[in-house]
Amino acid sequence: MLGRRLVNGVESTGVAVDDRGLQYGDGLFETMAAVDGRIRHFGLHLARLDEGCRRLRIPVPAADQLEHECSRVLEGLGAATVKLIVTRGPGPRGYRPPAEPSVSRIVMSSAARPRSEHTAITVRICETRLGQNRLLAGLKHLNRLEQVMACSEWDDPAIAEGLMLSMDGRLICATAANLFLVRGGCLVTPDVRDCGVAGVMRRLVLDIAARIDIPARVEDLRPESLGQADEVFLTNAVAGIRPVGEILGTGRWAAGGVTRALAAAAAMEDA
Amino acid sequence: MLGRRLVNGVESTGVAVDDRGLQYGDGLFETMAAVDGRIRHFGLHLARLDEGCRRLRIPVPAADQLEHECSRVLEGLGAATVKLIVTRGPGPRGYRPPAEPSVSRIVMSSAARPRSEHTAITVRICETRLGQNRLLAGLKHLNRLEQVMACSEWDDPAIAEGLMLSMDGRLICATAANLFLVRGGCLVTPDVRDCGVAGVMRRLVLDIAARIDIPARVEDLRPESLGQADEVFLTNAVAGIRPVGEILGTGRWAAGGVTRALAAAAAMEDA
Repeated sequence: MLGRRLVNGVESTGVAVDDRGLQYGDGLFETMAAVDGRIRHFGLHLARLDEGCRRLRIPVPAADQLEHECSRVLEGLGAATVKLIVTRGPGPRGYRPPAEPSVSRIVMSSAARPRSEHTAITVRICETRLGQNRLLAGLKHLNRLEQVMACSEWDDPAIAEGLMLSMDGRLICATAANLFLVRGGCLVTPDVRDCGVAGVMRRLVLDIAARIDIPARVEDLRPESLGQADEVFLTNAVAGIRPVGEILGTGRWAAGGVTRALAAAAAMEDA
Repeated sequence: MLGRRLVNGVESTGVAVDDRGLQYGDGLFETMAAVDGRIRHFGLHLARLDEGCRRLRIPVPAADQLEHECSRVLEGLGAATVKLIVTRGPGPRGYRPPAEPSVSRIVMSSAARPRSEHTAITVRICETRLGQNRLLAGLKHLNRLEQVMACSEWDDPAIAEGLMLSMDGRLICATAANLFLVRGGCLVTPDVRDCGVAGVMRRLVLDIAARIDIPARVEDLRPESLGQADEVFLTNAVAGIRPVGEILGTGRWAAGGVTRALAAAAAMEDA
């Protein structure tokens, strides 16, 4: 079921063809989970959007305006997904950003598929790699062709996700999720300083780990690092924490205690 | 003056918010120069678009349909610029391309500023670098945040362009133009196998050079290579061939014979 769509606060299905979001991917987005009109971890999403706007030098829309527009698209929906896009707005031809951009806000909702956090998923390792550029790394910006091409590598519905490597061969993240390993009781997630997205759920898991005394490290991982993992899971804001049961050609894992403890703590946060 | 805008053949100022061009930059574009209703080098633009669609696995729109729509937006304009965007069209949430995409065609025109090919320009070297990914290199795709950020580095109108390096320090192209050097009578342009755009005017200049017996090479260049250049020029489809008079902090050049010979030959092609 399709929900509502607001463009700059007005019900609309379209955005101007000269919007820089379309022309250049000049913008950012957040994909958020909502239950009964309330967005989970909205503060964390706003904080990441703020940071993205700051780094791309896009004026930050007012938080209360964004919150109001998100509530409007959630009316009448129970469990839902909200996608918020913020672009540098319309502009004349040319890459140069306008001196005083008129930022576009696009808010869309859709009814959510039921979550199944506890079912272990099967993932693959993609051939499409992530180009490295610290200027853009970590941001959830609108330049997503690498993820699109990675996702077009397979169509077996039994494969839930694909892991992506950086150009220099490090394991970074999945196409739409962050990666965590558990190794000797310690949580490890790849550094996203050169590429990849710093996910909101990744942030939350690291925060929870600190709170419940699970040691955690951000470090560079290689595909070989998977061989030493006791548990593997993926995180994103919509699907939450998903244990990985198998990485094709690489290994199999049983859902483990650390993953379960983190999932239980995250569920408490939601309540 | 703004010209007309067609979205899938219909006069429109908007594109659907769920178009993958906006959502992910999942598409390609061509920026073309036109005089009296005729687009210069339309065949070369179509060939590059075809190649881009093939590599991104986007169905190629029919050439006669694109030609017809470009003619329509040019009605009533003399010298004009036409921008054609082809996206993978609307789709449900998620990076995975739809199995049968319904491609979007967006065609926009604007009256052209007068060309001034023979005035030497001043350019700078940008700090923003180009991430490297052979999967996307050479294509004129819609993921252009690096160019946007590079252009936001300066606002002095006396600086016409900025040169960009790859992450590994090679000189690749300008934000919206290709780079050529002349060295000992030989034309040299950077390889774009890892990043950068393979411009239509770059292709044309290489073709002309072959025809008028100017030796030409595609090779890896470093900023230090500029020190050995006798002439430097930039190319793009709208501005044509522009001699570079100065690269700030690097060197100055007089407009030279090879640049003039190529510009004269290119002008003949246009006639």
